[in-house]
Order: sequence, then structure tokens, then C-alpha cells
Amino acid sequence: MPDLTAAHPVYQQEFTKPDGRPLTLYGLRPIEVTSEIPSPSPEAVDARPVMRWHPLRGEWVMYAAHRMGRTFLPPPEYNPLAPTSDPAHPTELPRGNYDLAVFANRFPSLTLNAPKPPPGTAHTRAGTGACEVVVFSQNADGRLSDLSDARMSLLLSVWADRTSRFAAGGIIKSVLAFENRGMEVGVTLQHPHGQIYAYDHLPPVATRMLEMAQQHHTESGNAWITDFVAVERDAGERIVHDEGAALSIVPPFARYTYETWILPTRPVSLLSELNDEERDAFGRVLKDALLRLDALFGVRMPYLLTVHQAPLDAAHPEFPLHIELYPYLRAPGRMKYLAGTEQGAGEFANDKFPEVAAAELRAVSLENV
Amino acid sequence: MPDLTAAHPVYQQEFTKPDGRPLTLYGLRPIEVTSEIPSPSPEAVDARPVMRWHPLRGEWVMYAAHRMGRTFLPPPEYNPLAPTSDPAHPTELPRGNYDLAVFANRFPSLTLNAPKPPPGTAHTRAGTGACEVVVFSQNADGRLSDLSDARMSLLLSVWADRTSRFAAGGIIKSVLAFENRGMEVGVTLQHPHGQIYAYDHLPPVATRMLEMAQQHHTESGNAWITDFVAVERDAGERIVHDEGAALSIVPPFARYTYETWILPTRPVSLLSELNDEERDAFGRVLKDALLRLDALFGVRMPYLLTVHQAPLDAAHPEFPLHIELYPYLRAPGRMKYLAGTEQGAGEFANDKFPEVAAAELRAVSLENV
Repeated sequence: MPDLTAAHPVYQQEFTKPDGRPLTLYGLRPIEVTSEIPSPSPEAVDARPVMRWHPLRGEWVMYAAHRMGRTFLPPPEYNPLAPTSDPAHPTELPRGNYDLAVFANRFPSLTLNAPKPPPGTAHTRAGTGACEVVVFSQNADGRLSDLSDARMSLLLSVWADRTSRFAAGGIIKSVLAFENRGMEVGVTLQHPHGQIYAYDHLPPVATRMLEMAQQHHTESGNAWITDFVAVERDAGERIVHDEGAALSIVPPFARYTYETWILPTRPVSLLSELNDEERDAFGRVLKDALLRLDALFGVRMPYLLTVHQAPLDAAHPEFPLHIELYPYLRAPGRMKYLAGTEQGAGEFANDKFPEVAAAELRAVSLENV
Repeated sequence: MPDLTAAHPVYQQEFTKPDGRPLTLYGLRPIEVTSEIPSPSPEAVDARPVMRWHPLRGEWVMYAAHRMGRTFLPPPEYNPLAPTSDPAHPTELPRGNYDLAVFANRFPSLTLNAPKPPPGTAHTRAGTGACEVVVFSQNADGRLSDLSDARMSLLLSVWADRTSRFAAGGIIKSVLAFENRGMEVGVTLQHPHGQIYAYDHLPPVATRMLEMAQQHHTESGNAWITDFVAVERDAGERIVHDEGAALSIVPPFARYTYETWILPTRPVSLLSELNDEERDAFGRVLKDALLRLDALFGVRMPYLLTVHQAPLDAAHPEFPLHIELYPYLRAPGRMKYLAGTEQGAGEFANDKFPEVAAAELRAVSLENV
């Protein structure tokens, strides 16, 4: 059932792994699978995630005791995210023609069928939600930024599709897609991939962003994106790359030195609301932003990428869809760590003005990255 | 002007460094200085910190462009926090008899005399506040936990004294004392020391904690500490060490695997409200908690220690004074990193139940740490 009305048709096919977890393969061409659908182990992990309430920060904390045993820096011959080459050592993915894959995380922090926890003295409830893995490519050595423009656009369609599925289920209220890249920041698998966390409630950041965006809308009568893009295009100095329908910018309030936001220039609250032209532009700007980070110091920049979409509990047109990129290097060889003020007070200290960082990012050569 | 009424009298003396920064020396015995008061450079750093408003997170971000040049892993022969041994290479501290030292950070993220920033397109204001360095000991190789019980108590008095001074000035509304330890988390100077950040506003964490504690008080009629201590002493399983007037615990909502809180058992909102007996017990429990973290895996545990006191804008008796210790190792050799869910959603995932972590911390041997 490809969506053939899109600029690039999106093909997809559903499978169930031997251990019961769902798998979806996505592609720009018809999906073709040429081996068994594998699972690293035939038995499902007994996940019993719970959440506990933090009474002084007013937020949930997720507990998943089964996660301690998860895969850690496997030798190159075993990559659970590569297509299975030796059936004696099954990975998470089959061989075949497909571009991206999404499956339920084998070691989830949240599951849709989390059991009610046994009674205890702590304020505990079931860890209801979902954790998915998104494999960006069959190429274990590639980067997200190595994807073609068409596949970059496909990834945006996949993130949109996963969000729409969760919205349709009715249980999930907030979805966070992200990529954490770099051994420097604890990434256990090098194969290019991201994750999706789906919450049955609104986490603190989503709550706060919605509240602030609604307040802006009430006070100014405009969507936050509209005013932000107008002011920043007028100022110019912080914009890194502008493709018309989407742009990248080091925001005036960047918390990380080279923090880069990618956003559509029309107020949109969900990826699924982007039209083909906007999605393609968004993908090109994202790819450009990622390439600039690698070019900046001539090393693969460790980073966190988070996709911020409106909560799903109701329509929230005021919420600004955007991607935040947090590059962890603040200078060559110097990582940014979250220390006292960031963790203890919740307030960031940044060593460089966003205007300066944006100028550096604009100036890099993208010739050989 | 020692406070001779205290169990341990606290002596202190004020100095001004050659570059104009204030220095206070504290001791359990009368202060004696036997060399010039030094400063690494005779000229003050031209600090012009500013704050900018993050419109979607609703928080300030601090910018301090002069901080990029700060001291980074100096060779062992130059330690700016050791007493000056060679006047040709002055450090931050003189030789003499004193136990602890506090001085204004040479590279501050906030200063009390921050100039009004030049006009620009971003929502910017002066970075008004203060950043201090607290040197725990003259011994460059020691740890905070190597301090004697009396010096541990002295440190609590010093933190209390700095907070009281800021409160008296009227500009500062919130004070965060902290120690960030471990090269693994970017600590640039090994000499045992902490920092103090003083804000002219309430940062997000202080705001939230005050709000939640006030809500608890309104709903239950009790101080949060009173109810928390009663429930946890009854449950027992999460308490690590209990000295009566103060205890340590892996809270039921721990966000880090071996997260440990140290708190008085009587509701107190500021360190200055502790009586001598409580301060001594608090210091002993803190020392015990730090020693257990080093004993746990037989390595110096990298950690963040933050001291949470009530905001200073008014009396807030509902606010629970406590120390939070975030150990960064979740298992031997395995660091906890803040990834997608922690940074993008503001919600932590923890691999181990607090009850299990507390049992492990109780079981360690403190013989040889």
C-alpha cells in the first residue's frame, strides 16, 4: 500500500519477528525480502518496565531492570542492526530490498503491555509506552548524512508514519524520535540508527514547550515559528542555511555551542503536515546541518538529534515542529559536559555567542565530508 | 571574628587579590597567611556575561565568551588551586594556615557587576549573579571524602556562610553549591574543589522544587521531609546510612543508578538553620556516602554533588534542604549518558531499582577507601 501521491512513493511492509516483536520495512521502491525474518533470540525479553513519580521535580522516572543486559559494543562480526548474513547468528533484520527499518526495541524502557507492578512502598505505575529502533540504512559504516536527498525525505515520512500510528492507537500522548551519535556519548552500536520513545503522558519538555508556544500565540496572535522566522531572517546573522520552505539556524538562545535547529518556515506542528516540497526541503536542510557539523573540526561530531512534534492528546497547532541538534564538542577535542548549573539548576552556560557559531558553520567547506 | 559558640569554631579572614577579586580563607584554627595574596594574572579577566531567554523552554541561557580561554588540565607543576610555592608562577592561593578557601571565579558565567549588553536582535540582558570557587583542602591529591569530620562540618558552615552573604546582598535569589568530580566528566582541575553559582532569579529546578514542596505542604499539612523520612524509615530498604539527625538514601525515584540523597531528618530549608549536632551528623553522612561510592567499584567514582537550599527571595520553610549525589557510573566501566529521553523529553531511564542499588551501597566495605 504505497503512498503513490507523494513526490517519492513510500513503500512499506509489516512483519512479526520470531520473538513476537513487530517489524516494518520502508523503501522508495517495492519491498523485497530474501531471507527469514530474524530475531537475535527466539525468546522475548521479559520486560516489566515501571515508572515512579519524582515528587520534587514533578516528573516520571522510568525503571527497566532488564536493560542492564543489553548489547554493548559487539565485535564487528556481530552487528544486530545489519541484515543477517549467517543464519546461525541472526540479527534484527533480514536481507532484501528496503531502505529503512523500524522494530520494537528488544530492551524497552516502556512497553504498551507493561504489567501492573506489584504493590510496594514507592509510588509506582506500569511503564506504559513504546520504544522503537529506526535503522537508517543497510550500510553499517554510513552516517545519517550519507543518505541521499530522497532517503532523507523518506526518513521524515517514516518518523511521521510512526507518530501517526501512535496517535491512532489512543494510548500514546507524546512521541520523541532521536538519534544519539558517537562512542564519546555512550552509543553502543555504530550502525546508523535512531530511536523513538512514545509516552502515555506529556513529559516535562513537551509540556513546557507547548505551554510556552501557547503563551506566545495568545500574546502575539501569531504562531511562534512565524515570528521567529521573520525576526531571524531579518537579522540574518544566525541562519546557517535557508532553503525557503525550511531553514537551519543557531538559535539566539542556543544552549550548546554549535546547537542547530532545523525548522519549516510555515507553522506546522507535526511532520505529517509537511507537504512534499516542505518535506524535501526539510530533509535537505537537515542533511546540510549534519554535514557542516562533521566538517567543522574534521571529525565525526558526536551529537544528539531530537525531533519535537506537538503532543498527541489533542490538536496543538501552536506547537512548533522542529529538530534540535546538540553537537557535544564545544571546540576541537573538548566535550561539553552537563555539570552543576545545567543539572542542579537546569540552566546552561555556553562559551560562544550563537552569532559567532553560526558564522563558523556557514564558513565550513562541504567539499570532502 | 570567629563564631566561638559553634561546636567547632569557624575562623575566617577576607582578602583582595591583585586583580581585585575577593578571597575568604576559612579554618578551624586562627587563619595565618605566610605569603603574598596571589592571583594567576595581575589583570582581571574582562567578563561581560549575558543571559538570553529560551522562548520554548522558558529558561535563561548564560553566555560567557571569555570562558573559552580558561585553564585546561595544567601540568602537575602548575595547579592554580594549590598554595603558591614559586612566586614567579602565582596560583590562586597563598601559603599559610587555613583549611578552606573561597574566591570569585576568574572566568565567571555570571558577575554582580555585569554590564548592560549592547543592543541587538536577541532578547539579552546582563549576566548578573556570581560564580565562586570553593577549595576544599590544601592537599591537591585528596578527595572531599578525605576531610576529617570536623572539616566536613566546616565545609557545611562555609556553604551556609556564602549563602547568607548572598542573601544579605539582596540581588541573589538562588544559590547552588556543587562539586563536579572526575576527568571522565570534563573536570579540568584535579585539586578537590567545588563551585557556587548564585543567580539573580529562580532557575528552573529551584522553581520546580519549591512549587512541588509547597504543593505537598498544602495537601498534607506536613513538610515534605517529615513525610518522606517517616515513610522511608518505615520501609527501610532504600536507606543507606542513618545517623539520626541526618541520613542518606537512594530515593525511590532515583534518576541515576546509584543516586544518593543526604538530608536532615528535621524539616530545614537552609544550611544555616542546622544546629551543631545536625551539621555534624549531616557532614558524617555525606562523607559516608562519598566513601561508599568510591568503594562500590573500587575506583574513584565520577560524580556531581549539588546542594539544594530554599530560594532567597522570601522565607520558604517548605523547601527541603538536601544534597543530591549523581554517580556517573551505572556499572563498572559503564558511564550513564544523558541521551534522547533525558535531554529531549526531560525524563530519565534507569536500569536498576533504587532498592537494589541501596542494598549494594550498604554492603560495601569501607575498610580501605
